[in-house]
Amino acid sequence: MQMTFVIFLELLPAKNGEEPTMQFLLEVVEILTSYIRKTFDRSTKVLDFHHPHQLLEGIEGFNLELSDQPESLEQILVDCRDTLKYGVRTGHPRFFNQLSTGLDIVGLAGEWLTSTANTNMFTYEIAPVFVLMEQLTLKKMREIVGWPDGEGDGIFSPGGAISNMYSVMIARYKFFPEVKTKGMAAAPRLVLFTSEHSHYSIKKASAALGFGTENLILLNTDERGRVIPDDLEAKVIEAKRKGYVPLFVTATAGTTVYGAFDPINEIADICEKYNMWLHVDGAWGGGLLMSRKHRHKLNGVERANSVTWNPHKMMGVPLMCLFHFPAPHYTTSGLLQGCNSMCAGYLFQPDKQYDVTYDTGDKAIQCGRHVDIFKFWLMWKAKVCSFLSALITNVVPIFSYQPQHTNVCFWYIPPSLRSLPDGEERRQRLHKVAPKIKAMMMESGTTMVGYQPQGDKVNFFRMVISNPAATRSDIDFLVEEIERLGHDL
Amino acid sequence: MQMTFVIFLELLPAKNGEEPTMQFLLEVVEILTSYIRKTFDRSTKVLDFHHPHQLLEGIEGFNLELSDQPESLEQILVDCRDTLKYGVRTGHPRFFNQLSTGLDIVGLAGEWLTSTANTNMFTYEIAPVFVLMEQLTLKKMREIVGWPDGEGDGIFSPGGAISNMYSVMIARYKFFPEVKTKGMAAAPRLVLFTSEHSHYSIKKASAALGFGTENLILLNTDERGRVIPDDLEAKVIEAKRKGYVPLFVTATAGTTVYGAFDPINEIADICEKYNMWLHVDGAWGGGLLMSRKHRHKLNGVERANSVTWNPHKMMGVPLMCLFHFPAPHYTTSGLLQGCNSMCAGYLFQPDKQYDVTYDTGDKAIQCGRHVDIFKFWLMWKAKVCSFLSALITNVVPIFSYQPQHTNVCFWYIPPSLRSLPDGEERRQRLHKVAPKIKAMMMESGTTMVGYQPQGDKVNFFRMVISNPAATRSDIDFLVEEIERLGHDL
Repeated sequence: MQMTFVIFLELLPAKNGEEPTMQFLLEVVEILTSYIRKTFDRSTKVLDFHHPHQLLEGIEGFNLELSDQPESLEQILVDCRDTLKYGVRTGHPRFFNQLSTGLDIVGLAGEWLTSTANTNMFTYEIAPVFVLMEQLTLKKMREIVGWPDGEGDGIFSPGGAISNMYSVMIARYKFFPEVKTKGMAAAPRLVLFTSEHSHYSIKKASAALGFGTENLILLNTDERGRVIPDDLEAKVIEAKRKGYVPLFVTATAGTTVYGAFDPINEIADICEKYNMWLHVDGAWGGGLLMSRKHRHKLNGVERANSVTWNPHKMMGVPLMCLFHFPAPHYTTSGLLQGCNSMCAGYLFQPDKQYDVTYDTGDKAIQCGRHVDIFKFWLMWKAKVCSFLSALITNVVPIFSYQPQHTNVCFWYIPPSLRSLPDGEERRQRLHKVAPKIKAMMMESGTTMVGYQPQGDKVNFFRMVISNPAATRSDIDFLVEEIERLGHDL
Repeated sequence: MQMTFVIFLELLPAKNGEEPTMQFLLEVVEILTSYIRKTFDRSTKVLDFHHPHQLLEGIEGFNLELSDQPESLEQILVDCRDTLKYGVRTGHPRFFNQLSTGLDIVGLAGEWLTSTANTNMFTYEIAPVFVLMEQLTLKKMREIVGWPDGEGDGIFSPGGAISNMYSVMIARYKFFPEVKTKGMAAAPRLVLFTSEHSHYSIKKASAALGFGTENLILLNTDERGRVIPDDLEAKVIEAKRKGYVPLFVTATAGTTVYGAFDPINEIADICEKYNMWLHVDGAWGGGLLMSRKHRHKLNGVERANSVTWNPHKMMGVPLMCLFHFPAPHYTTSGLLQGCNSMCAGYLFQPDKQYDVTYDTGDKAIQCGRHVDIFKFWLMWKAKVCSFLSALITNVVPIFSYQPQHTNVCFWYIPPSLRSLPDGEERRQRLHKVAPKIKAMMMESGTTMVGYQPQGDKVNFFRMVISNPAATRSDIDFLVEEIERLGHDL
């Protein structure tokens, strides 16, 4: 049978659809495994860059437009090949562009199974195995956070931003439960605190939830990007003096750009003193809790009232995979449930034959919820505590000085700027160097790394290592590539 | 090579990891294709039910606990088989339990590819093809909604609940943009309106965003579950009389239980008269827009200020796949961007070499965002406008009377109740019938259908057809099964 002559109507559930279905799926798998092989092959480029207008015009027959004629399955297979060809190989050993990199084979198998099972996390009824896996895994993760017997609650959410939003929501519900029914008008003017280096999702949450971004107060940091606890206390006192109510403090464990770890214990002392909710955003740095050697960077995390932890970053789990935990002393009272539940009768019937406390869907702000647990559970089964060792022990000691995390931020100074004195002209020219090198790097497709300005610092590169496939030679390659591309700027 | 002796450390990126990796993935695919074959086989059960404590104790060696010893890949494959064995076959022709059912083979291939590409929607830089596919698809969908030239904006979100939340957020931003910076204190007392039959996510959004559930006013419906426009107008006038500001009205196109379609045009007239935002929640019924014969049920949708539309329900796309659109007259002003953007420098650098308007991530309340577009794009390529015909034309005309959608709600009255006069005793006994039948149905594993009470109606079954694999004989089977199980109650 030639796929050329087969169209979707011949696939299952069609009568006699089994053979074409199996043939089609195996051809898809052939395309995917070929892609996987190339992803780990350093002679393959990281990307084959084209501008939006080029891709929209159609390159070598790759037509992105939605047509009015159905395509044959043969053409669908060609579309699959082209989609991968013009994409970015985020699992390539020389892809350093994001906090989430790498392609874990066991995790990938977990994702394929999850798509095939195609179910939804809201009830035990239709996801019995996944709901239990989520429960057991959350408990294990809470034990690692350091909460006694792993007691407490938690939920997987679609990303760190939503997870941080959950934390603000349950903090508000804890101190001002009447906001759920009466709105923000029922609370005094509430203020939130977070590092000037913290992730922008805290700001998104304060806008979305009705606090307003002006009521999110940014905290000063030291030269390595860590919150200065005295600055927090001063700003809390100042807010109280104005008659505002300090509600919520985020301590970031692993900031996005510098990889800085805020001093959790000192921040926790201040939170206790002023009766504020302490949230630890460990989206990026939470993975270090798995490492005996490095977990001290999160000392005090067990004092948090909620924690965000993102295994799709440092732990290499495929996107998305993100936990949100409220601390156990808040969960005995069913805080997450209380905050979000609306008890929809059509989903959460109380008169089912099984123990309906396993219908965890009403804790979420979502209704349908993607199954993000399985890939993580499967990776754990395969790897256990050696999980991170492959990463952390291979990665962090590459550096001869003591970084806080695997972020390395640096400028490349081209020869033409080296003799220029410090000053505005040098700053302005240096600001343009990283974008120019990045553009050339993407055109040549050999490697990818991020850059950004931060505070008064002009554009600099942020090199992040979270990919188990990356070796010292790949890092050397990146440095040489930057030199090669930037030498004549 | 035997997988028994292979552990994850031998997989890619390990040296010589290619052979074990390919072998492992092909064995996974063998498990998945065998599952797919059985899913469409009516002699297979829909589920093999066990209570939570039974699964937690471990059945036939299936150990859900996270151990401290890594497992061999052979055992990982066994875990995969067991996970599927004890799950629920949501693609089975006799699974009628949820609005999202079915297993589309092309969509599934799309999901496998998406997991393999393992990238993130926030920038064009790392998802060039997917970002363009999203843009083109959103435009096509807006054309189908009926907005001239498909102009406007939109975003994929992780579920209908988040999509409805977006709508409330941008409505607030349109009328009271200062709430973003100053919080809800900057606005007067705002009220929202929605059907008493609408989805509970509107209530979740009013709690989360700081309006308060008491400021969400429920509208009365007629005997078929449609909002009564006069009741909306009366309640708007009443709210204004109290000094509140009516902000936002949801019209539901396809309610969750009855499948009712609110009269959009009449509601739009009232929204225009009182200057309120009109949101159409077409999560369930939006699919009818693809059908010439049935789209009249959404007449007036093009007058909406925002629309939610969920192709993972009526259109059979694998979970999750959900659009949110603000209407074009609001998007020329960049409303979605204005409402949510925080301009994080490390992701959305303005000095990239390509057209950065394609970096759409800052419109979202998420940071990382799963690639939900590809499966839909691929399904469209394969099926085009015949997309829904397989569903709609096969499904809706099954019924001899004129239902509004594919929801059919009914009681099964066992013989023992048939001679009982109407009254409290009969109601109480009837209330217990559906849960009992459902419990037996799950134990026998032959089929699945949902039930719930609604208003003053005691528990009744809600039969929903959205699975292209279901035929008339499967529906007959369900009816016979309910009779068989319920006859002696």
